Amino acid sequence: MTNIEGVRASYGLYRQHMRKLADVRAALALMQWDQETYMPVRGSGFRAQQVATLSEMAHEMVTAEKLESLLDSLDGATDLNDIERKNISLTREDFLKQKKYPAAFVRKMSETVSKSFNAWNLAKKENRFSLFEKELAELVQLKKEETEILGYKEHPYDALMDEFERGCTVRLMDNIFENMLPKLRGLHEKIQEAKSPDDFFLFNSFDKKIQWGLGMQVIAELGFDFEAGRQDISSHPFSTSFNKFDVRITTRIDENDFSSMLFSCIHETGHALYEQGLPESEYGLPSGEFASLGIHESQSRLWENHVGRSRAFWKFNYPLVTEKFPEAFSGISEEQFYKAINKVKPSLIRTESDELTYHFHVMIRYEIEKMLISGDLQTNDIPACWKEKYRKWLDVEVPDDTRGCLQDVHWSHGSFGYFPTYSLGSFYAAQFFAQAKKEEPDINEKMERGETKGLLQWLRQRIHGSGRIWNSEEICKIATGETLNVRYFLDYLFEKYSKIYEI
Amino acid sequence: MTNIEGVRASYGLYRQHMRKLADVRAALALMQWDQETYMPVRGSGFRAQQVATLSEMAHEMVTAEKLESLLDSLDGATDLNDIERKNISLTREDFLKQKKYPAAFVRKMSETVSKSFNAWNLAKKENRFSLFEKELAELVQLKKEETEILGYKEHPYDALMDEFERGCTVRLMDNIFENMLPKLRGLHEKIQEAKSPDDFFLFNSFDKKIQWGLGMQVIAELGFDFEAGRQDISSHPFSTSFNKFDVRITTRIDENDFSSMLFSCIHETGHALYEQGLPESEYGLPSGEFASLGIHESQSRLWENHVGRSRAFWKFNYPLVTEKFPEAFSGISEEQFYKAINKVKPSLIRTESDELTYHFHVMIRYEIEKMLISGDLQTNDIPACWKEKYRKWLDVEVPDDTRGCLQDVHWSHGSFGYFPTYSLGSFYAAQFFAQAKKEEPDINEKMERGETKGLLQWLRQRIHGSGRIWNSEEICKIATGETLNVRYFLDYLFEKYSKIYEI
Repeated sequence: MTNIEGVRASYGLYRQHMRKLADVRAALALMQWDQETYMPVRGSGFRAQQVATLSEMAHEMVTAEKLESLLDSLDGATDLNDIERKNISLTREDFLKQKKYPAAFVRKMSETVSKSFNAWNLAKKENRFSLFEKELAELVQLKKEETEILGYKEHPYDALMDEFERGCTVRLMDNIFENMLPKLRGLHEKIQEAKSPDDFFLFNSFDKKIQWGLGMQVIAELGFDFEAGRQDISSHPFSTSFNKFDVRITTRIDENDFSSMLFSCIHETGHALYEQGLPESEYGLPSGEFASLGIHESQSRLWENHVGRSRAFWKFNYPLVTEKFPEAFSGISEEQFYKAINKVKPSLIRTESDELTYHFHVMIRYEIEKMLISGDLQTNDIPACWKEKYRKWLDVEVPDDTRGCLQDVHWSHGSFGYFPTYSLGSFYAAQFFAQAKKEEPDINEKMERGETKGLLQWLRQRIHGSGRIWNSEEICKIATGETLNVRYFLDYLFEKYSKIYEI
Repeated sequence: MTNIEGVRASYGLYRQHMRKLADVRAALALMQWDQETYMPVRGSGFRAQQVATLSEMAHEMVTAEKLESLLDSLDGATDLNDIERKNISLTREDFLKQKKYPAAFVRKMSETVSKSFNAWNLAKKENRFSLFEKELAELVQLKKEETEILGYKEHPYDALMDEFERGCTVRLMDNIFENMLPKLRGLHEKIQEAKSPDDFFLFNSFDKKIQWGLGMQVIAELGFDFEAGRQDISSHPFSTSFNKFDVRITTRIDENDFSSMLFSCIHETGHALYEQGLPESEYGLPSGEFASLGIHESQSRLWENHVGRSRAFWKFNYPLVTEKFPEAFSGISEEQFYKAINKVKPSLIRTESDELTYHFHVMIRYEIEKMLISGDLQTNDIPACWKEKYRKWLDVEVPDDTRGCLQDVHWSHGSFGYFPTYSLGSFYAAQFFAQAKKEEPDINEKMERGETKGLLQWLRQRIHGSGRIWNSEEICKIATGETLNVRYFLDYLFEKYSKIYEI
């Protein structure tokens, strides 16, 4: 065997190993999807065990000696192309990171997460934080252990954020929030002094089945491939992917809140369009995976806000809404509707908040997580701390835990360090959309005709197609010519609300 | 460590290994369930690969050296109780059998099965056998290889039947069918000469949603635990289990055929009640698994026929039917309804056939499979052979493949040797029910009041609770005092139809 043949054979084995790992992860993702959509309630105990077993197997595969020796043999091999070399180095990074986790820790974490999800579900339903507190405390303890396992330079919470967004640190996020929040607060104050648009008609009664039909129609219009995915109902909307040809999103329907389902549909579709746009041949390899959660979220926020909450989008779609709900929207103009869905309103629920106050919601979670991980806050003090922060930043009273600290699923999944990516995603989204618009100035005119294919094409080429080959900052630079610049987001927000609120 | 401690420790490790294996199998079962209920069409390619990977992993676990040495250390250990000893010996049997399969064969089979399922689905939809023929031929070839891998004494098909029903052979089944079919044919002839009950009212128009509601109500009434299971829609009804607290059944609804959904619901519920009755603590061990497919089928057939098609059952439930469909059953008496759902009618579809001609359907598949495996029939000759046999045994003309040789999902799953268990199940069912009735003579009176808990209790004690500790014949003997005796089935059938047809 020549050297080239040897390298090709090793790369083939590496690829095979990674694809099998992806298969196991797909099974895990399916079990988790099922758990939140269709699983009967008593199934949770054994499901927790099943998820734990497969997590352990995935962990064994990602830290296998066999993989290590393949990586060793491929390291620096000159017979690999650029993408292949990048795959090897990224897999090496993952390998070294995963190698740090003891198998027992992985299993313990997985089991605790499964238990926690059910406890959270019950606690949220029963509106009693105490039903979730024990599991949450266990999770926080495990997460603290995890920061020590992974290591960090400045703040233990850095280790957790890095899981979702490589390179994201407390220093960086503090800096972003400290600079941005005063500006957002300033805008918010002006808006509160201005005349507020009516939105009472969004809180009429909307038949759930008709809502569902509308959501499905909008999703299809945006390019979601229903032969390569599906939408279901769950208590907390999410998206997941088993491969680019099987991408699942979920939503929930509120009979008395028109926006609730619709924007979750568009948001999750943004995630799905990214997954459906990953390269098929790279399944299982870094080059076939999404780049980061911040970039993932940039896609959902771009479609939700820059498309779904835009004036142009509703020029085409408002007739569809009035056709489905003629009575509820009788006498309501397109302009009134547009303003209503963009009304800025300090509220309790993050996922239903406007584009401005959204970042206060994120920041509050970020602050609480930071304190939990550093030990400055105990889990049983969360509800009080939550209430206090909502009072301070949003001037709202949190009436109960279900609409307070129990509203988000993330902690029950063991996801700490995830929330900051929601804000980052919004900032990236604004920058990407600004660039797309610069390159294709008729983007809004097309949207007015229901055409968003061009935009999707732009995103596929600039962002989706390269998988995880580039990190967030590199993608941003490739797509827009500069690294993350929150000015695009602020400009977008100030321009939009200036018009709506005439300020 | 004393010897006892050593044995206990080994048994603990053995149990842990088996539970992890069960976890992987549960993930596989979930992937298969999803494939037939919710998976988007383009997801099939990668799903096939994912199923293959997990099948391979399960195969590695069941044939692991680690397992072998645990079995060696536990073999004949005196510090195990009877059930534990039986678990060890049954696991040893499985181990030796599975050890025969080369890993490459397991993977190839799994991939072929996934491809085949999609080909079958399409072929059935398009009504073209040719769209499935290539995959089927591949499967038959693999199955022939499998008979050589497993070995057999008399007929290669014995090796395949043994997979589903230990000890079942061509000699045994030929003997049963040769003895029974003439008697069934005789009864059938008498019935054809007698006055046939009306059943036109079963082929009215029945709203699908109302049917669904009726099915769900009946299932609940029979004791299906909806907190430990669920029902969904699929093109071919089936049941599967991820553990005793998560048992899934599916059905399909025909708007113009009242019986179609209802009896599939009751049938699959019979399977589910068995799975929900397995002992929780034995999860993953032979003592926590169903005994055989014949015994599994005995449970579904018992509930479907001895309960669901009984006079007593409809005394309680017919009012429910007329309440749901007042127009369709207007003027139709309980007695007329009972006779209609028991009408003997040579037909095309096995799952919709009556209790008598059902066994002709099974026998035809059995004969065809036997010939395919022995090489006496080629796959492209199946449609012609099928038509000829339906003409000969049921005197019906098969108009197309969808209602002919494409009707059943089994071959696309690679399940050859499965069909005979359907007949065996019916025979066991009759024997079990006769015994239950002997011990609790008021079983019918209770059913007239909608009470079937006592029957379920009897089945749980006699059959469900012991898992796979006893084989079919042993279970039969424990439950009824004698081994399989088809006289019970014939007596039941002759008595039932004599009354209905007044012969």
